[in-house]
Amino acid sequence: MGRPGTSADAKIRTDRPLKPFRDYFPILTWGRQYGRQTLSDDLLAAVIVTIMLIPQSLAYALLAGLPAQAGLYASIAPILLYAVFGTSRALAVGPVAVVSLMTAAAIGQIAQQGTMGYGVAALTLAGLSGAILLVMGVLKLGFLANFLSHPVIAGFITASGILIATSQLGHVLGVGAGGHTLPEMVVSLVRALPQTNPVTLAIGIAATGFLFWVRRGLKPLLRRAGMGARAADIVTKAGPVLAVVANTLAVRGLDLQAQGVRIVGTVPRGLPPLTLPSVSPDLIGMLLVPALLISVIGFVESVSVAQTLAAKRRQRIDPDQELIGLGAANLGAAFTGGMPVTGGFARSVVNFDAGAATAAAGAFTAIGLAIAAVALTPLIYHLPIATLAATIIVAVLSLVDLSILRRAWSYSRADFIAVAATILVTLGLGVEAGVSTGVILSIALHLYKSSRPHVAEVGLVPGTQHFRNTLRHDVQTDPAIVTLRIDESLYFANARFLEDHVADRVTPDCDIRHVVLMCSAISDIDLSALESLEAIAHRLDTMGVKLHLSEVKGPVMDRLKCCDFLDHLTGRVFLSQYDAWDALRSRPPVA
Amino acid sequence: MGRPGTSADAKIRTDRPLKPFRDYFPILTWGRQYGRQTLSDDLLAAVIVTIMLIPQSLAYALLAGLPAQAGLYASIAPILLYAVFGTSRALAVGPVAVVSLMTAAAIGQIAQQGTMGYGVAALTLAGLSGAILLVMGVLKLGFLANFLSHPVIAGFITASGILIATSQLGHVLGVGAGGHTLPEMVVSLVRALPQTNPVTLAIGIAATGFLFWVRRGLKPLLRRAGMGARAADIVTKAGPVLAVVANTLAVRGLDLQAQGVRIVGTVPRGLPPLTLPSVSPDLIGMLLVPALLISVIGFVESVSVAQTLAAKRRQRIDPDQELIGLGAANLGAAFTGGMPVTGGFARSVVNFDAGAATAAAGAFTAIGLAIAAVALTPLIYHLPIATLAATIIVAVLSLVDLSILRRAWSYSRADFIAVAATILVTLGLGVEAGVSTGVILSIALHLYKSSRPHVAEVGLVPGTQHFRNTLRHDVQTDPAIVTLRIDESLYFANARFLEDHVADRVTPDCDIRHVVLMCSAISDIDLSALESLEAIAHRLDTMGVKLHLSEVKGPVMDRLKCCDFLDHLTGRVFLSQYDAWDALRSRPPVA
Repeated sequence: MGRPGTSADAKIRTDRPLKPFRDYFPILTWGRQYGRQTLSDDLLAAVIVTIMLIPQSLAYALLAGLPAQAGLYASIAPILLYAVFGTSRALAVGPVAVVSLMTAAAIGQIAQQGTMGYGVAALTLAGLSGAILLVMGVLKLGFLANFLSHPVIAGFITASGILIATSQLGHVLGVGAGGHTLPEMVVSLVRALPQTNPVTLAIGIAATGFLFWVRRGLKPLLRRAGMGARAADIVTKAGPVLAVVANTLAVRGLDLQAQGVRIVGTVPRGLPPLTLPSVSPDLIGMLLVPALLISVIGFVESVSVAQTLAAKRRQRIDPDQELIGLGAANLGAAFTGGMPVTGGFARSVVNFDAGAATAAAGAFTAIGLAIAAVALTPLIYHLPIATLAATIIVAVLSLVDLSILRRAWSYSRADFIAVAATILVTLGLGVEAGVSTGVILSIALHLYKSSRPHVAEVGLVPGTQHFRNTLRHDVQTDPAIVTLRIDESLYFANARFLEDHVADRVTPDCDIRHVVLMCSAISDIDLSALESLEAIAHRLDTMGVKLHLSEVKGPVMDRLKCCDFLDHLTGRVFLSQYDAWDALRSRPPVA
Repeated sequence: MGRPGTSADAKIRTDRPLKPFRDYFPILTWGRQYGRQTLSDDLLAAVIVTIMLIPQSLAYALLAGLPAQAGLYASIAPILLYAVFGTSRALAVGPVAVVSLMTAAAIGQIAQQGTMGYGVAALTLAGLSGAILLVMGVLKLGFLANFLSHPVIAGFITASGILIATSQLGHVLGVGAGGHTLPEMVVSLVRALPQTNPVTLAIGIAATGFLFWVRRGLKPLLRRAGMGARAADIVTKAGPVLAVVANTLAVRGLDLQAQGVRIVGTVPRGLPPLTLPSVSPDLIGMLLVPALLISVIGFVESVSVAQTLAAKRRQRIDPDQELIGLGAANLGAAFTGGMPVTGGFARSVVNFDAGAATAAAGAFTAIGLAIAAVALTPLIYHLPIATLAATIIVAVLSLVDLSILRRAWSYSRADFIAVAATILVTLGLGVEAGVSTGVILSIALHLYKSSRPHVAEVGLVPGTQHFRNTLRHDVQTDPAIVTLRIDESLYFANARFLEDHVADRVTPDCDIRHVVLMCSAISDIDLSALESLEAIAHRLDTMGVKLHLSEVKGPVMDRLKCCDFLDHLTGRVFLSQYDAWDALRSRPPVA
């Protein structure tokens, strides 16, 4: 059947050798073309991103239950390392909302917030996550992230956004509230409600209101005032900095901390310290599964941001090298007092919009944040926690998008079940249970669907050589020939189904003389299915019915030639279904 | 596209209502046609099976670590209950080798052999297994068994056979040896070797040799002596009874128990007692996973035997009702001093060959065994344990068939990996780990394959309307048209793969004006894949390339019509690939 000498498949990536050493360092590629124009583009982007990242880093450290400086530290070494190893030119790496929430959930079960153990657990989690990502990158396991379906990710991000916003309400009320699931959080908030601090609440509401207005109202205002779209966008993103400055000055000027307003307080000045994650087997054992989930979620979020931005400039990113870049960034966080990091959506978009041309923009951002860590931390002494909570609430509510439920419902019930379960379990049982449920359920639903494949009985569309479902189209058929088109690869889970289907259709007392299996949708037949085909052929043979195959694909035919199935086949293998129809119809068997 | 009024699918079993009450009792169907001829056929079969089952029941109780009578009891009530609820006319239910081994492995971790707790755990395991099977039957979850692939089952049975035979060697040597994995068993045997009892060893070797000869040499001898094939077969199966009688008489006559030969000893006389499984949540928690594995393995083994036998008489069995039959049988075992049971291969074949016409043969067998339990137990007082061990060894070595490894290797690497891993893990880590590894690995390999589908670029086979792979066939192509045939349903795991593939093939500087996705192998597009298709269409559009679809199947088209994908499609949807070729080639776009 094959053309001589060309038995090669068109399947790409079949063999996957480890890549050459040079490809592990994308910096070597873009670094040599670096020029003056690129430098000024990158510097401008870095200044803007640095201003945006200062409050964000502090806020996400707070969300993870860590001291504020951990957020700053986690935005310095990781950005530098990603600049060396990452393939995206615009991705900005650091603490992000969902990963910080997952960090809090993972460590909260192990250590008390504010203790030494909590900080060490965060470093260990970052270290483990970095190691997992690196190993996945070297082994080219980036494809594993594909098993997180789009609806599951969308549902998970939405539910996480709701959890994060709820977790910050306590800070806005000025009360201590806890919990890692929505019911826990709500109960804890309701109990704490009587202790609400009115001044904190006023600050929190004002900051939240202002930030919402910045998001919704400021940009149109600036545009009407004649500012360019890109500039207006960037100024809008600087809104949190404005809120931080105003609130810090207010607390300081009015001495509001005497009224019970909680403030950030002393943040140590200096460059990130050298730290060591724990190597205790017990701790590693407890953090391994959370680290795996954080790695995969962080990777998926980061790669989708990087791919979206790269597509806009017709660049490509390499997912396996991204694993190495993010792995190095997390290892960097583990050894410099940080927390788990990944590529963030908002900061990367700002970086991109501000004109970042290469990963050097990230390196300059890291320098900016290092300067902030050394020089600016005394200035945020009076920054109220409620303001940071407000920046988190406003940022994450943009992640909440329940329309995925409607979209999934109208398109496919299986997708709807997966997304609804992901949202409910994430809210009700927490982030780890939620994402695990989503992945397992979507795989189970896929397997269930493929275990009961669509089987169509087909006939000839008149005037063509094309065959379609007899139930949907006006087609020609022959009472002595049954042609079944199986719309799925044959494997262990559906092998028995096909046996039953043929047994139901071809009974001993019918007029059928030929059964043709049209294999246009069969791209693999495993050993279980081969045995079922042999059983079908044998059963049909005892009734004097011949079994034929048509439109068998090259790779499947190669496989069948490896065993003796074709030698025992009572019928023939036809190149096309039309050939089968032509041959069998013109020579009807003598009854 | 569809013919008016016929949008129904040819997919069978899409809706699965609970079945009518009457179908839960197959006995009501065959019971009303019961006549004199059927009665005499069933009675003859019952006598033969009873004689065969007496030593077998005792031996499998021994294998499970239970007192001998548990095996007899487990062959009485379960057979009766299966006769009422089961759909196979020839299946003989009772203790079988693999399930007994799994029982020993499950209970061995919880209780000490010979204690009260051990017996109660066996009853509880049977009860749990029965409940699981019943629930699966009522919910029609029989299809779950399809996820055990044929090679995995073959590998598991082979490895179990090796484990069982090894576990019995200690009894043949007359020493106490334990362990649930092959390395444990071998170490234990080697350590115990110096305590070998020579008289026991002589009995064991003689019995094993005799039974092997019966299997291999007796049947040809009887045939040469003029006996019919069926009768010779049945006499051969009675070999173990002969060995049991001869050895029992030898021990009794020569007083060999004084030489240290271990014997069965006192077996209580009487009908099966009424017993209660434990309802302790701790015990149930520990036994739940083993019970699930035993249920599934037992069900798969039993259904494949039942289906093989039913096919020979052109009868059908109903897998979901089989679950109910086996569930009732196991619950029966739990309440009458038994142990987990399922349909056995050897005994069912003997039952079938001896002419059993209905499930009443099973009921008569149960009566025969009840008589044995009441009257014959004193006669087996002197039966040596070594003889029972010999019957087990000879029976299970016929299960060992390593040729599945060769067959899988030559056919498909994925199947080989699954079967090899199943065998190695079963031998090295035990039955539960082995079967779990096999199932998970075969699903993972299937998902991996479908996550990187075969994509062929196709062209027209000259003189036909048929399109094939350009790499394998001499076909016509057009430089402005790329037709990609994706050989897999599109779902979350391969959606990104397709995006990458199209991006690699269609670059901004190429001459391609039309991309046609030939959807003949696509039977489902999930929401993730839909989003990828939208991304592909968008990307191609920015390069001035149109995206078309051809040969979209009915169910997929229905789905696409539910959303706005088709409204945004830059190209067209063609009924057949030939239509697409015809339309696009005859009207080349102006450059």
